[in-house]
Amino acid sequence: MNAVLNLALRRWQLDDAEAPGCRMLERLAQRDGTPLYVHSRPLIEARVAALRAELPDGLALLYAVKANPDPAVVGCVVPIVDGCDVTSATEIAVALQAGAEGHALSLAGPGKSDAELAAAVAANALVVVESPGEARRLAAFAASGVRPRVALRINPPFTLAADARMGGGSRRFGVDSEQAPQVLAEIGRLPLAFEGFHVFAGSGCLDARAIAKAQQATLELACELAAFAPATVRVLNLGGGFGVPCFEGDEPLALATLGASLRALAADAVRRLPGVRLALELGRYLVAEAGLYLTRVLDRKESRGRVFLIVDGGANHHWHATGALEGRRHLHFPLTVVGGEGRAVERVTLCGPLCAPHDTWAEDIALPAAVPGDLVAVFQSGAYGASASPQAFLGKPPAVERLVEWPARQPADARIETSPHRRQETEHA
Amino acid sequence: MNAVLNLALRRWQLDDAEAPGCRMLERLAQRDGTPLYVHSRPLIEARVAALRAELPDGLALLYAVKANPDPAVVGCVVPIVDGCDVTSATEIAVALQAGAEGHALSLAGPGKSDAELAAAVAANALVVVESPGEARRLAAFAASGVRPRVALRINPPFTLAADARMGGGSRRFGVDSEQAPQVLAEIGRLPLAFEGFHVFAGSGCLDARAIAKAQQATLELACELAAFAPATVRVLNLGGGFGVPCFEGDEPLALATLGASLRALAADAVRRLPGVRLALELGRYLVAEAGLYLTRVLDRKESRGRVFLIVDGGANHHWHATGALEGRRHLHFPLTVVGGEGRAVERVTLCGPLCAPHDTWAEDIALPAAVPGDLVAVFQSGAYGASASPQAFLGKPPAVERLVEWPARQPADARIETSPHRRQETEHA
Repeated sequence: MNAVLNLALRRWQLDDAEAPGCRMLERLAQRDGTPLYVHSRPLIEARVAALRAELPDGLALLYAVKANPDPAVVGCVVPIVDGCDVTSATEIAVALQAGAEGHALSLAGPGKSDAELAAAVAANALVVVESPGEARRLAAFAASGVRPRVALRINPPFTLAADARMGGGSRRFGVDSEQAPQVLAEIGRLPLAFEGFHVFAGSGCLDARAIAKAQQATLELACELAAFAPATVRVLNLGGGFGVPCFEGDEPLALATLGASLRALAADAVRRLPGVRLALELGRYLVAEAGLYLTRVLDRKESRGRVFLIVDGGANHHWHATGALEGRRHLHFPLTVVGGEGRAVERVTLCGPLCAPHDTWAEDIALPAAVPGDLVAVFQSGAYGASASPQAFLGKPPAVERLVEWPARQPADARIETSPHRRQETEHA
Repeated sequence: MNAVLNLALRRWQLDDAEAPGCRMLERLAQRDGTPLYVHSRPLIEARVAALRAELPDGLALLYAVKANPDPAVVGCVVPIVDGCDVTSATEIAVALQAGAEGHALSLAGPGKSDAELAAAVAANALVVVESPGEARRLAAFAASGVRPRVALRINPPFTLAADARMGGGSRRFGVDSEQAPQVLAEIGRLPLAFEGFHVFAGSGCLDARAIAKAQQATLELACELAAFAPATVRVLNLGGGFGVPCFEGDEPLALATLGASLRALAADAVRRLPGVRLALELGRYLVAEAGLYLTRVLDRKESRGRVFLIVDGGANHHWHATGALEGRRHLHFPLTVVGGEGRAVERVTLCGPLCAPHDTWAEDIALPAAVPGDLVAVFQSGAYGASASPQAFLGKPPAVERLVEWPARQPADARIETSPHRRQETEHA
């Protein structure tokens, strides 16, 4: 059995063909058409609440807007977090429009344009610079009485075990930790208001102990570098990296383990870096499981012994769930035929509508028998969906995204899984 | 030496630091900003002319709009081809807007929506149906006096050697050749105007003999199936599949070889399928080499012994040239530092501006030493660029595309390479 899929079916109330989620999704598809992204406010709120319950007091929880910049989703998230991680002038505008304070925004990215730096300074956002050259470009925006707020991204000597691409070794991201003292000295000479450090050691990690270890190493590094900082370290952004289970066999992140480690870390930070505020920037973790992609079967055909289902949405809307994962062809996002539970199962290859061989949701999987007109729901689709896809490809209509007030928060349905330990606590409560 | 790169440098007049192309690209970048796609009308026209010179008289040359749906590019191509292969209502509209006749459009794709079928019927386009179910859906648009024009896509029993994904075996595309007789019978019973067959055996092939062989097999198949057709076969679309050299070691398609084979094939077709018109649908081959992507260096940094250049454009604009090719990490599109010829060379990793590890143009390659402000040109970028990329990702500004009247057609510069044989003929002419 696929535990990730089963959990998604329960979360969205799709456990059986008569479950309320089946009727709800059909209603949404009728109202808004397909393909359709459905994002759930209650599920986002439940996820943030479960996370908050584990985080140390005072830690700043930032939403990484790039995970899902849909204005309604950002509008749902902003009021329940402490700020946003943004990567462009557009994301700054989206966050401000959603009610975020400019002061609570943090601009990141290895290649910021002057226009983006200007937008950040105008919003009084924190700019996480990633090179000495970028610090100098930012300083050019200083004006009488205005010193742009700056943090320094450090390329640490370590990496998050599961993701060796974002930190450690030689990287485009940040300034090597051993170069940091001289860059900090330069920042001190520039008309910039230094506030702290940013370390992002990896992403999409499901191993709580690995994340905790990277966070601990980040604090150690910040303590070492604080001696070279031109001002008190007030912000230590620990990055993100919290993954969500997506593929068969994935286990949810043990949030209780991570929370316990973070609370100890926060206590340590208070002693060693007085006045510092820890921050986490999370995107996928807050919204991925709270969104699904709904697409309708256009055709069912057999070709030389295999069954193909063609649905009306594909790689143009949801690149990461289709052909983008070349190295993961045998894997697929959790998905189901809405209302198909209980039907006979057949082996099918599920394809999008594009004239492109990579437009494949899943190859040769067991799925409830489906016919044209049936809906297919693809779970774990709330992050890196529409905005991370080539929507103009082939000129198909863009994906519609809807934030819905459903599934209602009921103890049994809206419970967001945490670690087994924490889940038990919740059940006792 | 990288022959693909050298040819591109000559084509765009960038052979040395003082070459006219360097000044032109700097002027374009100043005028329109970067990142910028530059598409060349003279290069597109030269390519089509070189191709036409080889093709048999009467063959219909269709432009596959999906390769580059930029309205200016489509407007350049439409007057010099015989029609367009389209895949959506948007592409139908773009082609009509560019001056194409509705009758000269051919709608393809394994998952056409009813709205797309309706748009095709309204334009009097040919609809290439890919399943019996789709034929029935199309027939629903028949009206008194209007029988939708239809061709049947066949999944052949063979495949283009270089690309086993688009034809042969069990496939989502088309109707298996062995099922075709019964589907043709059904089409004959529906209110549809049958016109012919479509076979697309693969794409991006550089082996002229392999393409020729697939085309010959396509004619054989069409002759067999013609016996079952409900009307005279008037159209035989041979598909496309003509590749362009992109990676080091790629050899240009031997167009003369292919042309000779096609001329023989056309003569054969006239005898065996009287009244048939052969068609080719080409996208990439017509426009890829006539476009480049221009991006400016934002930052140069060293990290633990490696040099990173960060440019202002990346995967959001040009997915296929960056991280999409996971299996080809050691390969990269041909690219250069504009005006850098003659400078000292250094080994660099060239990255886009995104907070994403896959946003990489090239890893650890030799490139003329560059500094912030320099322009980098990425060649072979005229196809599957902006429209095939996740432009909304991170909210960076969309790519600007410009069709230019440059490089001017001069015998030495604008010559489009064909096979060695044909090139020699041209030189003798």
